[in-house]
Amino acid sequence: MIIRTTQKKGISITKITGQELPKEVEKNVAGVAAMELLKNTTSAYGFEIEIHKKIKPGSGIGSSAASAAGAVYGINELLGKPFGLTKLVEFAMKGEALASGAAHADNVAPALFGGFTLVRSYHPLDVIPINTPSELYATVVHPQIEVKTADSRSVLKQNIPLKKAIVQWGNLAGLISGLYTEDYDLISRSLHDEIVEPLRSLLIPGFNQVKEVTIKAGALGCGISGSGPSIFALCKGLNSAKKVGEAMSTIYENYGVDYDVHISKINTKGIKQINN
Amino acid sequence: MIIRTTQKKGISITKITGQELPKEVEKNVAGVAAMELLKNTTSAYGFEIEIHKKIKPGSGIGSSAASAAGAVYGINELLGKPFGLTKLVEFAMKGEALASGAAHADNVAPALFGGFTLVRSYHPLDVIPINTPSELYATVVHPQIEVKTADSRSVLKQNIPLKKAIVQWGNLAGLISGLYTEDYDLISRSLHDEIVEPLRSLLIPGFNQVKEVTIKAGALGCGISGSGPSIFALCKGLNSAKKVGEAMSTIYENYGVDYDVHISKINTKGIKQINN
Repeated sequence: MIIRTTQKKGISITKITGQELPKEVEKNVAGVAAMELLKNTTSAYGFEIEIHKKIKPGSGIGSSAASAAGAVYGINELLGKPFGLTKLVEFAMKGEALASGAAHADNVAPALFGGFTLVRSYHPLDVIPINTPSELYATVVHPQIEVKTADSRSVLKQNIPLKKAIVQWGNLAGLISGLYTEDYDLISRSLHDEIVEPLRSLLIPGFNQVKEVTIKAGALGCGISGSGPSIFALCKGLNSAKKVGEAMSTIYENYGVDYDVHISKINTKGIKQINN
Repeated sequence: MIIRTTQKKGISITKITGQELPKEVEKNVAGVAAMELLKNTTSAYGFEIEIHKKIKPGSGIGSSAASAAGAVYGINELLGKPFGLTKLVEFAMKGEALASGAAHADNVAPALFGGFTLVRSYHPLDVIPINTPSELYATVVHPQIEVKTADSRSVLKQNIPLKKAIVQWGNLAGLISGLYTEDYDLISRSLHDEIVEPLRSLLIPGFNQVKEVTIKAGALGCGISGSGPSIFALCKGLNSAKKVGEAMSTIYENYGVDYDVHISKINTKGIKQINN
């Protein structure tokens, strides 16, 4: 994204490449997030935003969050950093509300903080950065299948069995512990979702096969990225991450479904300025 | 506890002081745990056990676990340590099954490992030691009220709202993170139980008042110890732990209920041999 100060007050979106997205500020997640920040300042000038999208929307890997986070981060830099990261997350959440109907921080918090982040609570917003093991890589496959957010919500149940919640608590605590102690085996043993995955994965063709081949290929664990349809795996080391990416690809090659594979070390720095 | 080898094979309990407890091996938690260990060895000799109880049973602070853990730890030492800690937890759990009807590791795992311990899973048993912040103290009040285990179980619901489970996940992850980073404020913000405490605390007279005065007195957080009736608080530093103990005492003085207060630094070493 490119963000410039303008004499005219307010926000304008001047250019969008890579995807078809609305330029109207109030219909664009970056615009809405930027407006929320501006509401909380007395800036004498305004800002114009260019958006060059490199991720497809509707993927479950945080495309809208990237735009919302980018807008508030850039404007905050130009204003001389009046706001801390948690405050920026709050502003960016308004963009997420436009994109998904819920002002959640699942994606904007890690986009702004970098690394693993825990959203401990919303009232008040409490974002906790968690240690990121140094050899941890993520491999993500995005099969180009539409999963409607409404569907991925409606499959969730309002009540869950206490017994399953206890298993989930054990695995969650194990995962956090493994991230701090950089115990890859513990991370692997803990990467199980008893609650959401068994329901949401039904909406993602090939999910079970992808999970099976990634674990066989050496992934520490595998699950749904966001509300899908993307599927992530965590891996120890780049070679493992690449092998896992190849294994994921074979499944969607066989299905004849278009797909993208993203491989990345866990980015511990979050959003940053790449050009002065 | 005092444990000696004997020429006669098997386990015998030769002396019990401090509490009225059965000396029959199969009716005593230490005896049952010890027998479970012996079943897994080919020891040419047996063991006799003396138990000198310093904790009242039915307190919720792990009196039975202490006996079960002590028995298996002592015998393992005398045998030349054939078993690791997790295996000892498994044996001791059989003692817990006798005491509470459920072979759980909530108390025997920390008794054997020391410090904070996570029981990540039971199938297979996976016990994870968690970092213990250096200035952390526990203050526990044990009001001498009987809470029947059957009652404390029957108040729990088999299904819980997903929304509450999510709040609990946030706080659990925050607590684990705070323990690793020794962030006392985060530990304090995370010490909330949405699921069990609101139900079980109804069985403990004075719980809400105790919680209120301990937080006012500076405790990081407060909750039910085990299935009660004991109430624990975590505190930063010994002075704070003592103040919190005094605040707890005032409540049960007013109720005219007998009580004990225990104050201790979190013991990071677990069970140990105190006499050769």
